[in-house]
Amino acid sequence: MAKKQISSKERLINSGALLFAEKGFDGVSVRAICAHAETSMNMIHHYFESKEGLLTVILENFTTEAFVTPLKIIEDSPKSSEDFRLRMEMLFESTLETYIKNRNVVVISNQVQLVMPVLMAYQEKFSDFLNRSKKLGFVRESLDSEMIAGFMLDRINNQVQYAPWINKAYKIDLLKDVEYRKRWCKSNLDLFLNGITTR
Amino acid sequence: MAKKQISSKERLINSGALLFAEKGFDGVSVRAICAHAETSMNMIHHYFESKEGLLTVILENFTTEAFVTPLKIIEDSPKSSEDFRLRMEMLFESTLETYIKNRNVVVISNQVQLVMPVLMAYQEKFSDFLNRSKKLGFVRESLDSEMIAGFMLDRINNQVQYAPWINKAYKIDLLKDVEYRKRWCKSNLDLFLNGITTR
Repeated sequence: MAKKQISSKERLINSGALLFAEKGFDGVSVRAICAHAETSMNMIHHYFESKEGLLTVILENFTTEAFVTPLKIIEDSPKSSEDFRLRMEMLFESTLETYIKNRNVVVISNQVQLVMPVLMAYQEKFSDFLNRSKKLGFVRESLDSEMIAGFMLDRINNQVQYAPWINKAYKIDLLKDVEYRKRWCKSNLDLFLNGITTR
Repeated sequence: MAKKQISSKERLINSGALLFAEKGFDGVSVRAICAHAETSMNMIHHYFESKEGLLTVILENFTTEAFVTPLKIIEDSPKSSEDFRLRMEMLFESTLETYIKNRNVVVISNQVQLVMPVLMAYQEKFSDFLNRSKKLGFVRESLDSEMIAGFMLDRINNQVQYAPWINKAYKIDLLKDVEYRKRWCKSNLDLFLNGITTR
């Protein structure tokens, strides 16, 4: 009995995240979420009080726990230029993985235009890593660390959020094609670390 | 009479764009749009048949005409490395201006997850400019031109789309603060052209 209750709550969270991401918060009814989750109609009220309450829980479930791997990579300062590049490569890949894994909530937070505390916390730690790397001489002094972090996260955020259109327009599936994903990371990181111009 | 009709149609387009961008397509009623535009209730039906019809017209109004200035800049191939950098600087600034001027429709197209033909056409011409610059030796061979264009447009798109949150979180107003905008462009372009690492 207790097990069934936990599971229908979880199902509502998953269905809500999926449907909000697909159709927007205002485009989804309580009825549709319950139908998708295969629960009775009063379960949203029971667990979350309202559709708004369900949204809040979905957003609150997206915590720094999701970023454990990327955050681990930038905890220590780089020991050499090579080490810095390696960490950036691992960071780029694992951050992309995290965004893909949590795609629904990423899409929803963009829709409802909420500043997600987890993303601000992550960006802050990333900036801090870049500042330390700057002091060690691996990042150019003239660039602002927050700007650098923002640039990289914009790129990852959009690639994940708009993956379905990109797939439609260019027949590329970032979400499923792991080989493509690896190439995409390498190529973007090359631009990011080295710039586009020849010299 | 004819003049008044044109003007109420225009008002509906402007109000629709503003409200769709603010609250999402599903979050806005026909009634709210008409009230905002100060027209009578049947005017949306009269001009656009439905709310969907109004949305279509708003999206179709966003044509390559909006990108005249950026497209002019990348029409000719660069004559030198310096010329390439200058053109990229002008391109970055004028593309940002275009996105800011058309912010509502940019936000809406992101919401409804439609591939906008105007953005695809612009991206194609930008890639073409980069390919020509590559052949002339100003852009690194190993980078994919479409990826480069996508990286830059992601950055601009997000900065404009999320300007209200950025303003809230960091007290920076990209949309209104022209001085900040200039600095933002310079700093981002520096990263984009030269990368973040020291060598």
